[in-house]
Amino acid sequence: MSQINKLKIFNDPIYGFITIPNALIYDLIQHPYFQRLRRITQMGLSYLVYPGANHTRFHHALGCMHLMQKAVDVLRFKEVSISEEEENALYIAILLHDIGHGPFSHAMEKSIVENVHHEEISLLFMRQLNVEFKGKLSLAIKIFEGDYHRKFMLQLISSQLDMDRMDYLKRDSFYSGVAEGNVNSERLIQMMNVEDDFLVIEEKGIYSVEKFLMSRRLMYWQAYLHKTSLVGELILTKILKRAKELTLKGFILPCSEPLQFFMQNKVILESFDTTTLDLFSQLDDFDIISALKSWQTHDDFILSSLSKMIINRDLLKIQLTSEKVAIDDLNPLKERFALENDISIADANYFIFKGKIKNQAYDKEAEPIRILKKDRTVEDVIESSDQLNLKSLSKSVTKYYICFPKQLAEIHI
Amino acid sequence: MSQINKLKIFNDPIYGFITIPNALIYDLIQHPYFQRLRRITQMGLSYLVYPGANHTRFHHALGCMHLMQKAVDVLRFKEVSISEEEENALYIAILLHDIGHGPFSHAMEKSIVENVHHEEISLLFMRQLNVEFKGKLSLAIKIFEGDYHRKFMLQLISSQLDMDRMDYLKRDSFYSGVAEGNVNSERLIQMMNVEDDFLVIEEKGIYSVEKFLMSRRLMYWQAYLHKTSLVGELILTKILKRAKELTLKGFILPCSEPLQFFMQNKVILESFDTTTLDLFSQLDDFDIISALKSWQTHDDFILSSLSKMIINRDLLKIQLTSEKVAIDDLNPLKERFALENDISIADANYFIFKGKIKNQAYDKEAEPIRILKKDRTVEDVIESSDQLNLKSLSKSVTKYYICFPKQLAEIHI
Amino acid sequence: MSQINKLKIFNDPIYGFITIPNALIYDLIQHPYFQRLRRITQMGLSYLVYPGANHTRFHHALGCMHLMQKAVDVLRFKEVSISEEEENALYIAILLHDIGHGPFSHAMEKSIVENVHHEEISLLFMRQLNVEFKGKLSLAIKIFEGDYHRKFMLQLISSQLDMDRMDYLKRDSFYSGVAEGNVNSERLIQMMNVEDDFLVIEEKGIYSVEKFLMSRRLMYWQAYLHKTSLVGELILTKILKRAKELTLKGFILPCSEPLQFFMQNKVILESFDTTTLDLFSQLDDFDIISALKSWQTHDDFILSSLSKMIINRDLLKIQLTSEKVAIDDLNPLKERFALENDISIADANYFIFKGKIKNQAYDKEAEPIRILKKDRTVEDVIESSDQLNLKSLSKSVTKYYICFPKQLAEIHI
Amino acid sequence: MSQINKLKIFNDPIYGFITIPNALIYDLIQHPYFQRLRRITQMGLSYLVYPGANHTRFHHALGCMHLMQKAVDVLRFKEVSISEEEENALYIAILLHDIGHGPFSHAMEKSIVENVHHEEISLLFMRQLNVEFKGKLSLAIKIFEGDYHRKFMLQLISSQLDMDRMDYLKRDSFYSGVAEGNVNSERLIQMMNVEDDFLVIEEKGIYSVEKFLMSRRLMYWQAYLHKTSLVGELILTKILKRAKELTLKGFILPCSEPLQFFMQNKVILESFDTTTLDLFSQLDDFDIISALKSWQTHDDFILSSLSKMIINRDLLKIQLTSEKVAIDDLNPLKERFALENDISIADANYFIFKGKIKNQAYDKEAEPIRILKKDRTVEDVIESSDQLNLKSLSKSVTKYYICFPKQLAEIHI
Repeated sequence: MSQINKLKIFNDPIYGFITIPNALIYDLIQHPYFQRLRRITQMGLSYLVYPGANHTRFHHALGCMHLMQKAVDVLRFKEVSISEEEENALYIAILLHDIGHGPFSHAMEKSIVENVHHEEISLLFMRQLNVEFKGKLSLAIKIFEGDYHRKFMLQLISSQLDMDRMDYLKRDSFYSGVAEGNVNSERLIQMMNVEDDFLVIEEKGIYSVEKFLMSRRLMYWQAYLHKTSLVGELILTKILKRAKELTLKGFILPCSEPLQFFMQNKVILESFDTTTLDLFSQLDDFDIISALKSWQTHDDFILSSLSKMIINRDLLKIQLTSEKVAIDDLNPLKERFALENDISIADANYFIFKGKIKNQAYDKEAEPIRILKKDRTVEDVIESSDQLNLKSLSKSVTKYYICFPKQLAEIHI
Repeated sequence: MSQINKLKIFNDPIYGFITIPNALIYDLIQHPYFQRLRRITQMGLSYLVYPGANHTRFHHALGCMHLMQKAVDVLRFKEVSISEEEENALYIAILLHDIGHGPFSHAMEKSIVENVHHEEISLLFMRQLNVEFKGKLSLAIKIFEGDYHRKFMLQLISSQLDMDRMDYLKRDSFYSGVAEGNVNSERLIQMMNVEDDFLVIEEKGIYSVEKFLMSRRLMYWQAYLHKTSLVGELILTKILKRAKELTLKGFILPCSEPLQFFMQNKVILESFDTTTLDLFSQLDDFDIISALKSWQTHDDFILSSLSKMIINRDLLKIQLTSEKVAIDDLNPLKERFALENDISIADANYFIFKGKIKNQAYDKEAEPIRILKKDRTVEDVIESSDQLNLKSLSKSVTKYYICFPKQLAEIHI
Repeated sequence: MSQINKLKIFNDPIYGFITIPNALIYDLIQHPYFQRLRRITQMGLSYLVYPGANHTRFHHALGCMHLMQKAVDVLRFKEVSISEEEENALYIAILLHDIGHGPFSHAMEKSIVENVHHEEISLLFMRQLNVEFKGKLSLAIKIFEGDYHRKFMLQLISSQLDMDRMDYLKRDSFYSGVAEGNVNSERLIQMMNVEDDFLVIEEKGIYSVEKFLMSRRLMYWQAYLHKTSLVGELILTKILKRAKELTLKGFILPCSEPLQFFMQNKVILESFDTTTLDLFSQLDDFDIISALKSWQTHDDFILSSLSKMIINRDLLKIQLTSEKVAIDDLNPLKERFALENDISIADANYFIFKGKIKNQAYDKEAEPIRILKKDRTVEDVIESSDQLNLKSLSKSVTKYYICFPKQLAEIHI
Repeated sequence: MSQINKLKIFNDPIYGFITIPNALIYDLIQHPYFQRLRRITQMGLSYLVYPGANHTRFHHALGCMHLMQKAVDVLRFKEVSISEEEENALYIAILLHDIGHGPFSHAMEKSIVENVHHEEISLLFMRQLNVEFKGKLSLAIKIFEGDYHRKFMLQLISSQLDMDRMDYLKRDSFYSGVAEGNVNSERLIQMMNVEDDFLVIEEKGIYSVEKFLMSRRLMYWQAYLHKTSLVGELILTKILKRAKELTLKGFILPCSEPLQFFMQNKVILESFDTTTLDLFSQLDDFDIISALKSWQTHDDFILSSLSKMIINRDLLKIQLTSEKVAIDDLNPLKERFALENDISIADANYFIFKGKIKNQAYDKEAEPIRILKKDRTVEDVIESSDQLNLKSLSKSVTKYYICFPKQLAEIHI
């Protein structure tokens, strides 16, 4: 007899269809807190390099939930018992794991909401939603906080091989067109199992794990830390810092109300009450980019110059070096730029600066990726590989950069 | 011995790589007029249905240029002579053919810049750029205006089987995940030829042409005119109308300066001087969505209610009907809604209204798609097909709709 | 505690993974009757046009089973009750539906096993397997024969929108690279439902059904009836006829034992006993192609000439015409060819002949594709479409062809 | 006015279309020597694991030529001069580089045509074709033999990053569905350049090179040396050895004439005259598999048992071990099997044996992959990587295996 199911299917160019499993999940997706993720891009300013990379955190969160559904299917097929309540909690937890992200969060976290990490805000959102939804999120929160006794459930949500990474590597690779970053999430999930309450990968999946870590490394250097993405993010951080500085000096910069609030107030985790959370929930890419657009014509040389750079994609020059640059080496550049633009050396720091980036594809210190061998023993993937590969992937790589205006490019430092 | 080519390759998940053929094209892409297209989505509010559909007009324009490069290659291989100057003009013309689009242009053209079509604005931009680039766009403009003697060149840019359609159908299908809308641009281009100065498709490509028209029709009904995209666009149109109405009454609505200008002034094609063009060039999706976000809390019931609908994706209900609805049939709904919300019947028109949509996949009245038969005669594709298919695809289909608030859904009309 | 599942996953470039649901299905796949399908290509001689089209009936059968698993999931989600026994029977029936195919079956059925249709042989195989597997295939056979009371189950296996067609159109399109033949099986299955015991497609899937029928038509004309595939098949039919003719005259042609048997005996459905079935089960592409290879050097002019054509892909010329060719029109060609090669006119018929091909994408006379409308009424898809499209797709199209040796190409007929 | 190009496009599901650049290439493809590659699968018995892996050496050769066309385009764009004659020679050389492959060549080379490597036979074919085509292949042969002064041309055809590997890794990954083996040939080619007459990869392509080597390693262990492919190949080698042994003892085994020739004669490189070459050119997968099919019922226990294993995919069991197995360890198995089947211990060696496999993704001793750094210095990729990765990829990995009949699986050794 069967009833026609009206809603609850999303098209996804990656997975085909994403099915919403039940009404509670549907209502969470409909909530303004979650709908807001439609207006926050997943890869921030990377679209400056990869014009296809405009996908949102909304789509990513749905994708993660889809993979979680696959994982639950596979684990149950392998006779891992997962109750209906646990299943639902897993879906909720993965759906909301990133809900605390603000727009361009790396830049935000270094300028406006200092030292408040997005996971902590995600938790605040979940608790607030748990009130609205009358306690139906309690188990999800428990898992997310690491308080649930079945540890593998947290690993599905947050570990070195979780649904989050599986979706974002795949999705970012897909939309950016960096084809080599693609990961075979389907195969990895097929190889999952649970042993001694730990999430494990069956031995024959080991090449896929290596490939996954390689892809992760490649996406870091080729996309997330691509020098154009990086310089974009650095400039944006400088802009927001400058804006906050001007605001604290008493200038009222044109921008949306919620952004105004975060510029006028020092926000730390402890001060994140319901009102702050609600204001935070109104922030998205549109507040930031619109502000930049209007700041292009502001009187402040720093604010307007840097804002124009982002809007017209006319960025600072960035050079990567394998060795650290001494801070004094930049002085000649700063002096010349200060002189030419009639600004102080201190202000020239907004245009000429240095720093470093670091990445490691696999963190030996963190919760390991575990391999289940044919004899049912479990070992760290790093021990299982037949080669040095994984050892090398766990080495941390550091690169140094300097940024400066293009017109100074001919000056050697 | 061969120089390392620094720039000039864009990643595209659809075509792999898009190569920028020369420095002039590169400079055009770098121009703020063109960079602005990065902030205008190709499918407007369709992301409300298809969460992946966040791709931009920037990427589409590059994609069109890429296809044009393929077309030039194929035609030259078939010994159609195309000079280097003509080649370059084709790239420029296709790159800029859509530069006149504003944000959410269907809604804009029905509210704020009434009766100014985007092609006309594209031409204004081209002319302005031609001044800046010292006449290097002259031939491109000539082709675009239909004044060049080799007619097939215009057909490559604007016809029922042009590079524009080939890219947008493919791209929109790709990003939305409506897999069936995909078209085989590569095959269609392989089948292109020129006969008597007309663009033609060789006979063996006829099924591909049919498939292309089918895909076009499918994308119309399943994506562009999808009822959720449609109701979103209708609401947005109402919002902009309301905003303009309030502005003309003397209220100053919070919004960006360029948007303010277009709300305060009646803009017609004749009044599009350089200043207007420059203000227009500052408008993008961010102006519109940011305005909506702040209007959510405005005192005006209509403005705030409708704005919240878009932002929280909590839209009016829309019903499609195959037959026209009499205007009076909506009266009971309007009366009840007016009463419940303490507004006038006139104001209820913002929430309860009707209309029609129309589409035809192939326009018999327009420049036909020509088939080159094996005996080298040419005929309209509609004559060549072995079936009624194409005749049916050239029939115009009309559907009627009514929109009203969800809470009235239980009332039968 | 979860056990590692050893076997039972097949890689499939189309669906990712195909999971074998249980041990019975696994044992059926392992059976030599089924393993033999690894040596029978799905598209026969189409690889002469599409070099990638080497996929086998083995892979197709697995693919069908995979889609059936999806269909069962979707229907159960929509609360159509399907018992475990029925589920299993559906998997078996679809897995074995094509097991009666011989190598190049169209050519075979017109030459060697005249008038025995492959479905009938499939049924013979199923019954034989049912004996070996002690009755476990009984329900599958019942469904396959149309004797089971739940009619929609047969429709899933054999109808105008069954799992068979969904897989082969998708698979043939994939491997041949005829991208436009691709069908969105996933979406079609998502739209399936059961009403009044009939398989139906929910209304919003109607464009997908149209697209499916378009793809089917395109695949017919562009792949299955592509003129090179066609001429290949026609030549192969002639070869097999000639070989049988020579055999009946007493010549012993070199070939495998099973093929020898079918050339020496007249086989009709009634004579298909266990021995015949077993011999039939030993026939595959390797018997036919190996025979052709050795017949290239046979004394018989007809046999050797035609065999070389296939092996070296140096085929007869084929011309399609929209109108029927009178038989006498071929006489001049035959006379000349007979003279030049010192053979009789009768023998020239092996090289110079005519015929027709016919296809209709949707058969109005057969079991219709049913659409479930929003008001829960059901209608034939042909009534539901907003256009003439489906009507036109149900029109039968006939094309005529003539074949003759290339060296006669300059003679006009 | 532009002529319709009749032939000369192949559909390829991977690249879309493959264009035949000129009439000479077309004629080479039409030659029976080349057409024969349609009947030789690229991955041998791997279809026993990956049912989609039925693609042929014919398609691979076309694919290589397609990539060569891309490479020529890219290099010319970077101002590497390549004359028309050189271009054509590159196409011919890559097209024919694998023409010397026999069916299941690894098994063949270890049994029937001992110590004659396929490259040497390729060269014999090329020389023969050069006679037929009146010297038009001379430059191609010169490049292929390494005698041409522009060394990078040979590197395009045969090196650690040649068109051959780029196509086969991509193609094998595509058809087998081992998605992770996919390589981004397009990007790698985009990054190619020539410096000091060496083929180099520009620095920013380094992650792609690493990914390429990872994919290569993964394809080795997951496809080419997959234990089921391996055991299949080992059994086939044993069959062919046994068949040759029986033949040399005077038995006439049923099989095709060309195969008979190679079983009856000891063939070494020096004895490869035109007749031998012609007979060799008649060998393909059909000879081998057809022979196996008929040998299933042969009186010789070894020959028939092993043949049935391949045909019915009912293989020996294979166990991989990381440590070498002492030869005596297999004795208990052999004794038992000999006893149970009433055969000698020597004959039991056909069923119970051991060996090792070895692979290294990057060979430090061979011609290196060179990286062109931004300062235009060139270095071995192994020096350029920021990690140990490549060093580890150049380590040779060895695995040991033992094979034995399934029924002995419970016996521990």
